[in-house]
Amino acid sequence: MAFVQVKPGALLSPVPPVLVSCAREGEKPNALTVAWAGTVNTQPPMCSISVRPGRYSYDIIRQSGEFVINLCGRDMLRSLDYCGVRSGRDEDKLKNCGLVCVPAENMQFAPAIEGAPLYLSCKVASVTPLGSHHLIVGSVVGMGVREDLMDADGRIRLDRGDLLAYSHGTYYSLGQALGFFGFSVAGKDAYARRMKELRKK
Amino acid sequence: MAFVQVKPGALLSPVPPVLVSCAREGEKPNALTVAWAGTVNTQPPMCSISVRPGRYSYDIIRQSGEFVINLCGRDMLRSLDYCGVRSGRDEDKLKNCGLVCVPAENMQFAPAIEGAPLYLSCKVASVTPLGSHHLIVGSVVGMGVREDLMDADGRIRLDRGDLLAYSHGTYYSLGQALGFFGFSVAGKDAYARRMKELRKK
Repeated sequence: MAFVQVKPGALLSPVPPVLVSCAREGEKPNALTVAWAGTVNTQPPMCSISVRPGRYSYDIIRQSGEFVINLCGRDMLRSLDYCGVRSGRDEDKLKNCGLVCVPAENMQFAPAIEGAPLYLSCKVASVTPLGSHHLIVGSVVGMGVREDLMDADGRIRLDRGDLLAYSHGTYYSLGQALGFFGFSVAGKDAYARRMKELRKK
Repeated sequence: MAFVQVKPGALLSPVPPVLVSCAREGEKPNALTVAWAGTVNTQPPMCSISVRPGRYSYDIIRQSGEFVINLCGRDMLRSLDYCGVRSGRDEDKLKNCGLVCVPAENMQFAPAIEGAPLYLSCKVASVTPLGSHHLIVGSVVGMGVREDLMDADGRIRLDRGDLLAYSHGTYYSLGQALGFFGFSVAGKDAYARRMKELRKK
């Protein structure tokens, strides 16, 4: 089937819609919704977020040198959307959404958001102006997993976090687990065992 | 509920598992699976991919200065996984997966992959070594949408593309459409109308 050529746009998807929390000395913390976010390095772990420099949180992140990425589950959808369309300049978004801040590992100012399936504490490593957005790369210096998503054997069960995805203006739940990394070259027995595990989740 | 602190890792998710296609003069094209990918700028549109410098495709992308990001639908899952675990150094992955290359808009060498819901033609804008991976930022200079995902009125219907997501080692389909950007502040009538549209899809 042929491709139709259209005007280039920001259509890479699905992307992770996350709540980025930040704070600076003597002020209440703020949260900003970011969908232009991703992992950029495995060893050491690093993430990036892209933020418009006019956003209220931008200066906070630049001045404090830190931010926390909170993954979002389905029960956070309304807050996630609200923090993307309102500004911390005009209101206390965290309070208005009923979101509660808790200390994040290795962060001096930026909190984590209670109830998030997982949070990543990030120290700003670099900031690169690209146009509408600035690319902020952060080193992941701490990570917290919601208690109920830790197995008895210490495994992180992110599959039980009911994570949200974002694609072309729409929020989605994650659907069916279809395969595991490397399934296409797995032996028959390993494949059957791993797929059975996945489907059970 | 409390957080359990664990060793920091690359757990931002879900992320978009994409097939990155590339080529250089006089050689067969290659494809590489990348999950460390995202949008980094809206105006002008820019994407990033993070690639280990030892990967076969890394030099091809550096030397040609271009790559194509192919979003992947469910019918491409096996190829997507296979191109992430095998190397173009050892075999013709595209051929072995039965993937067909077609010209990509504004690319001299890199092809698009037939059947992808959408592709983004990218010119390398910068390369930043971070550790295990190099962050490659690309300017989106062309975009193609699979014919059947264009509405009669010219709207892109990515929601019909059956896109894949990746989270913590597992591939997922996208599930239910839960809301649209801005739903939390939409008026009652606009909310009802838009949600009806979403659920119909």
